[in-house]
Amino acid sequence: MVESFTDRRGQVHSFGDAVEEQRVRADDRGHVFHSWSAQARINPLPIAAGKSSTFWDYEGNAYLDFSSQLVNLNLGHQHPDLVRAIQEQAGRLTTIQPSMANDVRGELARRIAEVAPGDLNKVFFTNGGADANEYAVRMARQATGRRKVLSMYRSYHGGTATAISLTGDPRRWANEPSDSSVAHFFGPYLYRSAFHATTQAEESQRALEHLENVILLEGASTIAAIIIETIVGTNGVLVPPPGYLPGVRMLCDKYGIIYIADEVMVGFGRVGEWFAVNSFDVVPDLITFAKGVNSGYVPLGGVVISDRISSFFDDVAFPGGLTYSGHPLACAAGVATFEVFERDGILERVRDLGARVIEPTIRGWMEKHASLGEVRGSGLFWALELVRSTETREPLVPFNAAGTEAKPMAEIASACKAAGLWPFIHFNRVHIAPPLVISEDELRRGLDIIDEALTVADSFAVQE
Amino acid sequence: MVESFTDRRGQVHSFGDAVEEQRVRADDRGHVFHSWSAQARINPLPIAAGKSSTFWDYEGNAYLDFSSQLVNLNLGHQHPDLVRAIQEQAGRLTTIQPSMANDVRGELARRIAEVAPGDLNKVFFTNGGADANEYAVRMARQATGRRKVLSMYRSYHGGTATAISLTGDPRRWANEPSDSSVAHFFGPYLYRSAFHATTQAEESQRALEHLENVILLEGASTIAAIIIETIVGTNGVLVPPPGYLPGVRMLCDKYGIIYIADEVMVGFGRVGEWFAVNSFDVVPDLITFAKGVNSGYVPLGGVVISDRISSFFDDVAFPGGLTYSGHPLACAAGVATFEVFERDGILERVRDLGARVIEPTIRGWMEKHASLGEVRGSGLFWALELVRSTETREPLVPFNAAGTEAKPMAEIASACKAAGLWPFIHFNRVHIAPPLVISEDELRRGLDIIDEALTVADSFAVQE
Repeated sequence: MVESFTDRRGQVHSFGDAVEEQRVRADDRGHVFHSWSAQARINPLPIAAGKSSTFWDYEGNAYLDFSSQLVNLNLGHQHPDLVRAIQEQAGRLTTIQPSMANDVRGELARRIAEVAPGDLNKVFFTNGGADANEYAVRMARQATGRRKVLSMYRSYHGGTATAISLTGDPRRWANEPSDSSVAHFFGPYLYRSAFHATTQAEESQRALEHLENVILLEGASTIAAIIIETIVGTNGVLVPPPGYLPGVRMLCDKYGIIYIADEVMVGFGRVGEWFAVNSFDVVPDLITFAKGVNSGYVPLGGVVISDRISSFFDDVAFPGGLTYSGHPLACAAGVATFEVFERDGILERVRDLGARVIEPTIRGWMEKHASLGEVRGSGLFWALELVRSTETREPLVPFNAAGTEAKPMAEIASACKAAGLWPFIHFNRVHIAPPLVISEDELRRGLDIIDEALTVADSFAVQE
Repeated sequence: MVESFTDRRGQVHSFGDAVEEQRVRADDRGHVFHSWSAQARINPLPIAAGKSSTFWDYEGNAYLDFSSQLVNLNLGHQHPDLVRAIQEQAGRLTTIQPSMANDVRGELARRIAEVAPGDLNKVFFTNGGADANEYAVRMARQATGRRKVLSMYRSYHGGTATAISLTGDPRRWANEPSDSSVAHFFGPYLYRSAFHATTQAEESQRALEHLENVILLEGASTIAAIIIETIVGTNGVLVPPPGYLPGVRMLCDKYGIIYIADEVMVGFGRVGEWFAVNSFDVVPDLITFAKGVNSGYVPLGGVVISDRISSFFDDVAFPGGLTYSGHPLACAAGVATFEVFERDGILERVRDLGARVIEPTIRGWMEKHASLGEVRGSGLFWALELVRSTETREPLVPFNAAGTEAKPMAEIASACKAAGLWPFIHFNRVHIAPPLVISEDELRRGLDIIDEALTVADSFAVQE
């Protein structure tokens, strides 16, 4: 465990150093403008240190990181192999412009192509997930000569203009219209079926029927791409039923539409596969990634590209690019990620911990927690959907609740933090997304904390 | 000088190691998709090492980097202070999510606020210049309740949807329309005046008159922001005449429009100022930056925000954000940049080298090079505008020339590279943009190489 922390000048501090904490808070409150926030209504917690699945505030409180930061820290805090790879690459060749060839850039691209399905053999590197989706859409538009993109309600695809337009959650609202050539459709979500389905098979079949109707009514000849989070992330850990994604693939083939799989959150091991599509027997035309590719140790994202699409740009210039495309420092951490995954059997342990520890534990909670409407997920990526009543399925808090309305969820979060766990909470759900290197003991301890915190949720639910 | 290089596994290679070079080329050609390119028509050069103002290919050829990569490498290749800052931060706390407070994130924000003009006191960090411009525009749109943005022809603002729409060069064309709420106007460019002006004062006054006409005809009440590269970068190193930017500021005040200064390329010392606006006596509402903030050693960009605009978001949530906002590793390299600039007097040496070495040298070339139409610039940022005839000012190659049409410029580039200099060439211009740490000897040597290469340009010009 960590007992002290070091500042930028190499000075060692004990936890509880109020002067140091105050300095950090003052700089932050005075000068840092934060994402997605009303700036006067937040009080960012200064973080002093991190190690594997745990991070510490300046007072020395330890938090078990059950959100992997923003579901990016797949190999946990301060993984020694990634830290070393960054330090060595920094000493070797920190950066070189994208028009040059670079050893780690090429090696990471090859590694990614090797684990990507089908003929997805080339990689366009970006700085993160948002621009990965921006450029994937651009490739689809150029290659098809069509403009419109279909994306799901209940989805998140990033913050820049096209990416936020693709997004199917409230973060889009204040930004409309940014890219006006986007239309939204409903995906499968049996617990709250948009199609009045009662089985997964029925949900899948009806969701595909709905999608085909949207294609017909939007005009197949106008649609460049359909973009889908392979497993919907922040908006609910919605695992598609078995036939759904293959059905999407067939519709795309039928209508000449590019299938983009957004794996920014689920790629690189989150559900025990390099890419989640691998477990659904489906080969998209483009896969976008970020986060887990190097655990976000250095900003990096990208698009994995099928031969069919990359060859379209053999003689036609791709009209997009960025200064830091294929950044060597970022790519070095990516190559190290592959080495750690392979050496330590990360994919296998994710599947094991998910199936053997998480799933039976949280399914067991259904019996005792009146607020628990549904549990769903895969690997180390699960959602607990909380309701006022398992009968009516009314969400524990309203959609997009804020302030007083969101109080039940805020209380659950407080209970978790007080017990030493940093939770991922979104709307009426608690997600479980710890680093993939979490020990079984830590995982069980974290689950116990959430189990206990759900008694808070239960107090807001109808006792049956 | 560098005599060998090290691969990612720590193995040392001599230059000329054909096996190693072939390996890098094979990975690159097989798997890396490159920016702004027809993929089958490029042949990316593998780079083995870099140090200060020089980089080396695998054969051991040294190139004096007169483009600072993509005008980002302000402190040169492998600056020891930046490398150390990255290595130490990697060992301390590589990353933490944007909603937390972090020491280096806060320190860099404060440092930037201290050198920014006026009341620009808060910083929203992004991954690069494109998303900095995306989010600056978003802030302006939210704060004004208006949607349209005016930007210049002959400008570049980035590759994502809104940023490419702001762009006033051909890279926008294949992407239209992305963000349709953008209109373009002409800026001052006396050498090719859009206003038939004959003096800088006249150009400035007429350019402002033109801008006000565009505001009136687009509708002042519809315009959220005007975005301007303080000195236009890739599109020509166009230094605005003295009164122009203050005039823009007055027009913005008159019509309630937000003034965004894009300093992605010119900020952080390129022209001997922390921000180029500081030399034009003007205070924008928002400044966007990237590149020089940490020399691109770790992807980083951002928006510096006036109190007026940041306070708008005190109680209203800013509808934007990103996973890597305020990335500690990137910020640590930024703080180190401030320390190096201050310790080594970087701003002063840039002004000195520009005024004492570059300007007199290249002005002297006007006499002897028939192809040299105009030289212009500031600090370590200059353009040589090449023409077929100084009389007619016909560009040496047509606007946006490619293939055979662009041959004269390709030959100039080849002459530079053969002599050991990596040039920045765009359309009919050679830009001079070396790292700010370049020695006077290297700078003079590089200028000699360009001087010699201009004889190639002269052969395509009318001899008078």
